[in-house]
Amino acid sequence: MPEYKAPLRDIQFVLNDVLDAEAHYASLPGCEEATPDMVSAILEEGAKFAERVLSPLNQVGDQQGCQFDNGDVKTPEGFKEAYQQYVEGGWPSLAHDVEYGGQGLPESLGTVISEMVGSANWSWGMYPGLSHGAMNTLHEHGTDEQKSTYLTKLVSGEWTGTMCLTEPHCGTDLGMLRTKAEPQSDGSYAISGTKIFISAGEHDLADNIVHIVLARLPDAPAGTKGISLFIVPKFMPNGEGESATVGDRNQVACGSLEHKMGIHGNATCVMNFDGAKGYLIGPPNKGLNCMFTFMNTARLGTALQGLSHAEWGFQNSLAYAKDRLQMRALSGPQAPEKAADPIIVHPAVRNMLLTQKAFAEGGRALIYYCAQLVDKTHLASEEEKKEADALLAFLTPIAKAFLTEVGFESANHGMQVFGGHGYIAEWGMEQNVRDARIAMLYEGTTQIQALDLLGRKVLMTQGESLKGFTKIVHKFCKAQADNETMKPYVDALNTLNKEWADITMKIGMKAMNNREEVGAAAVDYLMYSGYVSLAYFWARMALAAQEKLDAGTAEPAFYEAKLKTATFYFERILPRTHGHVAIMQSGADNLLSMDVDQFSF
Amino acid sequence: MPEYKAPLRDIQFVLNDVLDAEAHYASLPGCEEATPDMVSAILEEGAKFAERVLSPLNQVGDQQGCQFDNGDVKTPEGFKEAYQQYVEGGWPSLAHDVEYGGQGLPESLGTVISEMVGSANWSWGMYPGLSHGAMNTLHEHGTDEQKSTYLTKLVSGEWTGTMCLTEPHCGTDLGMLRTKAEPQSDGSYAISGTKIFISAGEHDLADNIVHIVLARLPDAPAGTKGISLFIVPKFMPNGEGESATVGDRNQVACGSLEHKMGIHGNATCVMNFDGAKGYLIGPPNKGLNCMFTFMNTARLGTALQGLSHAEWGFQNSLAYAKDRLQMRALSGPQAPEKAADPIIVHPAVRNMLLTQKAFAEGGRALIYYCAQLVDKTHLASEEEKKEADALLAFLTPIAKAFLTEVGFESANHGMQVFGGHGYIAEWGMEQNVRDARIAMLYEGTTQIQALDLLGRKVLMTQGESLKGFTKIVHKFCKAQADNETMKPYVDALNTLNKEWADITMKIGMKAMNNREEVGAAAVDYLMYSGYVSLAYFWARMALAAQEKLDAGTAEPAFYEAKLKTATFYFERILPRTHGHVAIMQSGADNLLSMDVDQFSF
Repeated sequence: MPEYKAPLRDIQFVLNDVLDAEAHYASLPGCEEATPDMVSAILEEGAKFAERVLSPLNQVGDQQGCQFDNGDVKTPEGFKEAYQQYVEGGWPSLAHDVEYGGQGLPESLGTVISEMVGSANWSWGMYPGLSHGAMNTLHEHGTDEQKSTYLTKLVSGEWTGTMCLTEPHCGTDLGMLRTKAEPQSDGSYAISGTKIFISAGEHDLADNIVHIVLARLPDAPAGTKGISLFIVPKFMPNGEGESATVGDRNQVACGSLEHKMGIHGNATCVMNFDGAKGYLIGPPNKGLNCMFTFMNTARLGTALQGLSHAEWGFQNSLAYAKDRLQMRALSGPQAPEKAADPIIVHPAVRNMLLTQKAFAEGGRALIYYCAQLVDKTHLASEEEKKEADALLAFLTPIAKAFLTEVGFESANHGMQVFGGHGYIAEWGMEQNVRDARIAMLYEGTTQIQALDLLGRKVLMTQGESLKGFTKIVHKFCKAQADNETMKPYVDALNTLNKEWADITMKIGMKAMNNREEVGAAAVDYLMYSGYVSLAYFWARMALAAQEKLDAGTAEPAFYEAKLKTATFYFERILPRTHGHVAIMQSGADNLLSMDVDQFSF
Repeated sequence: MPEYKAPLRDIQFVLNDVLDAEAHYASLPGCEEATPDMVSAILEEGAKFAERVLSPLNQVGDQQGCQFDNGDVKTPEGFKEAYQQYVEGGWPSLAHDVEYGGQGLPESLGTVISEMVGSANWSWGMYPGLSHGAMNTLHEHGTDEQKSTYLTKLVSGEWTGTMCLTEPHCGTDLGMLRTKAEPQSDGSYAISGTKIFISAGEHDLADNIVHIVLARLPDAPAGTKGISLFIVPKFMPNGEGESATVGDRNQVACGSLEHKMGIHGNATCVMNFDGAKGYLIGPPNKGLNCMFTFMNTARLGTALQGLSHAEWGFQNSLAYAKDRLQMRALSGPQAPEKAADPIIVHPAVRNMLLTQKAFAEGGRALIYYCAQLVDKTHLASEEEKKEADALLAFLTPIAKAFLTEVGFESANHGMQVFGGHGYIAEWGMEQNVRDARIAMLYEGTTQIQALDLLGRKVLMTQGESLKGFTKIVHKFCKAQADNETMKPYVDALNTLNKEWADITMKIGMKAMNNREEVGAAAVDYLMYSGYVSLAYFWARMALAAQEKLDAGTAEPAFYEAKLKTATFYFERILPRTHGHVAIMQSGADNLLSMDVDQFSF
């Protein structure tokens, strides 16, 4: 039976030793309550909930899936009870505005809880995850009246939320969307159209579902500049604020559930809006801009999925590798008293374990770093806020696409450690692979993130966006220039940091002649950027560990393991950049020269 | 609805223009019948069967899976009828001994049919695939009496076969197997034990199932040197030879079916042998040696699976990429009359399509080349046979592991082209990923193939095994030294060919001090070897295409496409070797230094 144990020691290492969460929170107005003791206490409770309540439902969720019956959706056994416990524990309100019933704790703390929830049971975690996105959107763009009812009910967890963007003929290209919003005499709008791939669109966990919907006003300009954002509740509210209850059924209904490769426990719905009553959020025709709030939250949330499946795969394949006896080590028996050696003696098995470990822990550092940037964009001074915004804009596509790609790779390594048994459902490893696979698709595919990074973020700022990060790397390297133990890491980082800038310039030059060069280079550029970014975080983790060891610690094995994993990352993962460097500079011709009719005969 | 169309033009290109199948067959005794016309006619019939009968059953096989009922197994709707047609068409007998009812056509022709069958419906193809392995084993090691009944019935397709190796506690490490064979007074053996992961172990396609089983005699030495091979039929035969019928039920039964990630249409059985009557094949305690016949067949057969899923993913994602409208090309609208451009205009989409195409077509050339070697090991002169044997031993682990790894990668690209729709079952792309995933696990994992290649094949022959292949590459490059159009390919190949030998020597030196260095380098060495091997075959395909173009051809677009794909392979795939070079030379320390207790805290 697969298991999840929240890696609290690793989490604390990143928070305390690497990112100095204490100083971070102390510097932000309103976060003073998030002291290390408080944080620890919350994380321990979160870990218990993830391990004891959610983890045991992960496999059953996959096996049972969601059941559709005439518009209603039944979630798998135990999901509803788990959600009740989640609400009773006050988890939905953790990182939300006190004005609407929230606890006002920083977003970055919510990220750690989301990691544990998602690692224990990604399908389940998507229900509150979507609510979180809806809450952030309402918080930023809703009117006071909208917030007083909808936001309050979402913060309490009594209601949940969704985000309704995609339509059958448009996912990436939202400019083509057709859902209509007709103004009504009472100031509301009648929303009509079909949305697909709506996660948590219908379910039995909560009394009401608040859909945040993209639609077009009658006079809207074509394309992305004519899209507006609406609130469309499943049931109209009776009354206001905290005491609101559920009234009449609105004209929105789930038409069917998609049959998916994985995340079976989450309901992926076709939603039909048939003149449903909706309310405009934010200014008309600016819906896509408002939606970016949600999209950025969702992209970091999806980055977490890469980390989650890597961590889960690592934990379970590690246990198996210690236990399963098969063959002897090439250098001679390591467990001569047993019928064979545990497979963890074999270098190829260790390689698969360490790859998962390096991506999970490196990914954690990158995501928590981004989460601290999110805190700053909400709470820091204007200047710091601007800087954090720019850095976050640069790192978000990297975190989303790179971590989900290596998260999927990691899930596959976890499965591979099990040999043929990995292919069998009962071990849970193949579910981990199937669940991980969607992360490279939704919230913008890897290819879309890559265009966002190289095209919009890096080249459209003439490289300023990249420079914002390479400066930080450079500063780190410079500070460690005389540190002998850090030399291998710092030398490699320095070289890469320079190469990164050089390659960017070269691609930028080519792109001036032919814009297709951006698309031709983008995915390899993104993967390259991911490997280098993670190298920076592994170097920081190595430094933090080295400082602890130098200062004397009661946990030398723990900190030595960080150094060993950092070395593994630099020696066995980072050289993958070599291939990407050559490929992204090979030009667009080798992709574009093939006529469409020549692809197949 | 996903579709498979047998790529006959590409197949003919490899057979005729690249590998000169006509000359090959003409040179082998007994293969004279396999003239180009004959081959074409057979392939066309095979294509019809694959496209019209098997392909429509692929998705239904996945959805229905096999049903277990009290020892019986019901295959998905249509599987049984398809098998009847297969038998009626004489396909089981194609490449088997005329003495036992076969058509005596060369094995390599059977490989092409297997490709089409497997690409159309891998799960279905495994039923005859396992029979094929059993037939080869019986042919090589069975007595005349055993052959006259069992082989004849397998060749006709009236009965099917299995290979029973794995037990719950041993897959890779067959030395630990426990199934017992007690000699009986009538010269038979009573076989008792449990086998798992038995593909096609029980089903409703045929009257009888012939299990080829590994078991231990009472006085057998421990380990791999005490394993013998047995025939254990599901029903005892009544009578002999062609006219044998099915008699009493033997004491072997399917205990349950595994629930798997994919290949749902194939029955993966737990088989319980409870004093079942069996007959020794080959000498006592030499079962593993006899089994190698089967294993090599099975490994090349599994290599085909990599090609199959790459081809299938390519075909279906190509159709989607031409059809799906989303966004405009970065350089401006390509289909201004439409609401958006078809996604095939985007370089990132082309990259995914061309990657699949390059692996499918390159894999085909590698596998057909290996299949011609198999022909030679059966039929050529002693000297040629020896050379073919050595080359095949070297290429088999590369073909098996490398092609299944890149086949899985390709299946994922195919799915990714569909965006979110790829994750939805109806399109079939996620099934292709799930079905492809097992290929890296069964018949020896990638990690095991890597040890076989670097340890057993290359280093244990002091590099002779590698030299056998690099000589061929060298000869090719030398012959094209003055060919200007071939220069980019030949230059790259020459460099790699030399690097391959250098790296091998360096690893060999390190391994003399520490045998763990072999395990630490093996997987990257194998992947590197795969990329270089495929580069050789892409260079040969480029040459063949160039010669056709130079000579004047009615199909210039077809041959130009080969050159473009070759260029794509050399510029966008081959640079991946750079990373592998660095990683495989990074030494074993970064894998072995972590104490088992340090992996997690």
